[in-house]
Amino acid sequence: MKLLAFAKRASMTFSCCLRPVLSTTIRSSSSSSSSSDSVKWEGGVSMVQGASRGIGLEFVKQLLQNSEKGHVIATCRKPNEALGLLSLKNMFAERLSILPLDATNESTIEASAKSIRDRYGFLNLLVNASGILSIPDVLQPETTLLKVEKSSLLLTYEVNAVGPILVIKHMWPLLKAGGGTGTDRDVAVVANISARVGSIGDNRLGGWHSYRSSKAALNQLTKTVSVEFARRKDPVICILLHPGTVDTDLSKPFQRNVPEGKLFTKEYSVQKLLGIIDHAKIQDNGKFFAWDGQEIPW
Amino acid sequence: MKLLAFAKRASMTFSCCLRPVLSTTIRSSSSSSSSSDSVKWEGGVSMVQGASRGIGLEFVKQLLQNSEKGHVIATCRKPNEALGLLSLKNMFAERLSILPLDATNESTIEASAKSIRDRYGFLNLLVNASGILSIPDVLQPETTLLKVEKSSLLLTYEVNAVGPILVIKHMWPLLKAGGGTGTDRDVAVVANISARVGSIGDNRLGGWHSYRSSKAALNQLTKTVSVEFARRKDPVICILLHPGTVDTDLSKPFQRNVPEGKLFTKEYSVQKLLGIIDHAKIQDNGKFFAWDGQEIPW
Repeated sequence: MKLLAFAKRASMTFSCCLRPVLSTTIRSSSSSSSSSDSVKWEGGVSMVQGASRGIGLEFVKQLLQNSEKGHVIATCRKPNEALGLLSLKNMFAERLSILPLDATNESTIEASAKSIRDRYGFLNLLVNASGILSIPDVLQPETTLLKVEKSSLLLTYEVNAVGPILVIKHMWPLLKAGGGTGTDRDVAVVANISARVGSIGDNRLGGWHSYRSSKAALNQLTKTVSVEFARRKDPVICILLHPGTVDTDLSKPFQRNVPEGKLFTKEYSVQKLLGIIDHAKIQDNGKFFAWDGQEIPW
Repeated sequence: MKLLAFAKRASMTFSCCLRPVLSTTIRSSSSSSSSSDSVKWEGGVSMVQGASRGIGLEFVKQLLQNSEKGHVIATCRKPNEALGLLSLKNMFAERLSILPLDATNESTIEASAKSIRDRYGFLNLLVNASGILSIPDVLQPETTLLKVEKSSLLLTYEVNAVGPILVIKHMWPLLKAGGGTGTDRDVAVVANISARVGSIGDNRLGGWHSYRSSKAALNQLTKTVSVEFARRKDPVICILLHPGTVDTDLSKPFQRNVPEGKLFTKEYSVQKLLGIIDHAKIQDNGKFFAWDGQEIPW
């Protein structure tokens, strides 16, 4: 009840943060960072896509907690229902913006890109954390080829592979404008949350056809994008991250067979992943890392 | 004109071969091969999906020409317009059946599986040769992330990755029933036509996002299926084949930069691929081979 009452109050705060221009702190139509911007946005500007819960929400939390200055844009499909984000908004105020973005609806991605361009002018980090594995009564990870359905394959591909790539497409100019400015890195980073089960070479158990296929596709799309970033000498790299098996809503129905000590908390996994992101260098472009920094075969 | 006139005549022949039961040679509702079937179907029963032109059509041709006995089922979306197949039907009569199958329409796959079960009772080989790279005014291989469109990603995935897997799903019981019976192999083979550009590890040029992603997904799905075949100890293996750059309608708009001697004829490529298939062994299950027999990294 407390949370709900808070959500109602917070939804008003939230509507504010959708406005592209806040008169006291924002200069509109800035498409690249000026020196005054550099000071204003010290600590960098990060975007987390798919931030309402799970790993995405934890990224937002740690990005805000780890520094006194960095700004974070959290996007999700239904900001008004994202209680975890609204709670963070209450604590971190202007340092957090919450924008509505459904990665399966390109116009919402474009609208977010415009909002971010108008308010911040650039990005230093994009974490694509949205993803689906199962939806009660709609989508179940396949245990056999006999249960493979076209609708499941297409839906999972659309959310897990197509969505993140369209988000990168629209945020690319902002990432180029940002590079590593305001951070300890030389480059802006796109971190796509993939999964070890997306690895073809590491596929020894089979099953989960839709999910495995979508993550292999995400890996290929990310690699493809990384090649173009390198060719254009953009100050942007793309990496793929495997968070381990993390105790989230996504993994909850499938945690039974996880060996003891191998089910990570969100806090632990995201702390490790942020360590990889913070130390990412240009030569990491296009690579696929596990939470412990080990590279995963394709 | 000659071809068209022939097509009209041949379409009558074609309607015959759609009938599930031909009284003189066929026993209906045979779901596994008996000893009399073994004699009747000596040389094996092969299915080529996506057989109206290009590599698929060439597979049908060489499978029929290479033996005096093997039977071939060729499937395509519009058999009445498949002049190449109709011409082969004229030459090889009962040894070739032509069935309508659109890999994006699962009910047509089920109907073909039923037809094949009723007529032959089993399969020894399934070649999934259907695939798209470009369609004038609809689909163009992307030269940059900026040109990536959701519709292109989804369409290419549906045709190149989802379609072949659904075909395997429905042909699986027939392949299990067939194994290597009537052929020189110990196992039935599913050969999915993939492409080197689907390799993530080998992706050095970037671009072609939709096609690369769909083929990486096909590779992952094929690997996933191969794990289940092995676990169940089925007499069936799945392999992935890269045909090289072959002079077909698919590659025609993109042949300009192919180095001299690297643009293969259909005849040469399919001869090499059939060599791989004919010598495939159980330990090849789940592997990705180029036309020259070299394994390709994921």
